[in-house]
Amino acid sequence: MQRETIRIIGIDPGLRRTGWGIIESDGVRLAYVASGHISSDSADPLAFRLRVLFEGISGVIASYQPREAAVEETFVNDNAKATLKLGQARGMALLAPAMKGLRVAEYAPNLIKKTVVGAGHAEKHQIQAMIGFLLPKAKFDSADEADALAIAICHASHRGAAAMAARVARAG
Amino acid sequence: MQRETIRIIGIDPGLRRTGWGIIESDGVRLAYVASGHISSDSADPLAFRLRVLFEGISGVIASYQPREAAVEETFVNDNAKATLKLGQARGMALLAPAMKGLRVAEYAPNLIKKTVVGAGHAEKHQIQAMIGFLLPKAKFDSADEADALAIAICHASHRGAAAMAARVARAG
Repeated sequence: MQRETIRIIGIDPGLRRTGWGIIESDGVRLAYVASGHISSDSADPLAFRLRVLFEGISGVIASYQPREAAVEETFVNDNAKATLKLGQARGMALLAPAMKGLRVAEYAPNLIKKTVVGAGHAEKHQIQAMIGFLLPKAKFDSADEADALAIAICHASHRGAAAMAARVARAG
Repeated sequence: MQRETIRIIGIDPGLRRTGWGIIESDGVRLAYVASGHISSDSADPLAFRLRVLFEGISGVIASYQPREAAVEETFVNDNAKATLKLGQARGMALLAPAMKGLRVAEYAPNLIKKTVVGAGHAEKHQIQAMIGFLLPKAKFDSADEADALAIAICHASHRGAAAMAARVARAG
């Protein structure tokens, strides 16, 4: 059976800094394509900052043409102001791929860690070490980029499982 | 002195329902232009719902060509999940005008109420009654639309004050 290669973008949203990472998966092997981050200037008005994020993510999608997108389910905490800010940035991370017609999957932080490292409570450095192992060609100089790649890896793993379940269901 | 007439869109963001209202102001008189709301279906994926809101607001701006926009500063509460949802919807309300090059002003709920009704703790029905008085031709059948018109009225009032202060400063 010829395996289909799918290109995936993972996005780690943040108002100040949104990380993105693009990988390819054929269902078994993963390959690093590119990663980076988009920053917005806290001195700018909020609406403009959101536009910078939206246009940045949209530009990355236009350049690399991923077919599917994955975004981390945001960790909501007790700081309502921080949650609201994150919500606004997260809106950009969800909207940009949706505007290009991409399906956007969402994964809980614990599932991402568990998928990448094997434990739901992995430390940042464990995730980064595992990404270096899974994607030897990956270059990233920030935690946001590493997290975005981890999200993409999580999607590569779980979309495959879902697709296989669907094939088994059809065959059965 | 010839007074400039400015067209303003007020937006009351919500994931389920986002209200919008468009008015014109010449600095003294206000006129109702249009209002309505955009709904998203809770059965749809989040990214798609955000796209529906973004495209709906963008469509209203394209149709009515307001020159300035105003959005309510969101009331953040203890329910982190609700705050995150609202943040995502609010991102659309800020992004849509920013993508058209409009300046987006933000006003606290209390200032909006104080400007429209004269008291910072006005009830919904007081706001709606005052909108009926200030904009006799206004037709609205939801609280979201009324709130969006109140936001636009607040901006008409405060942008005028800011412009006057600037004129006085220049003259002085």
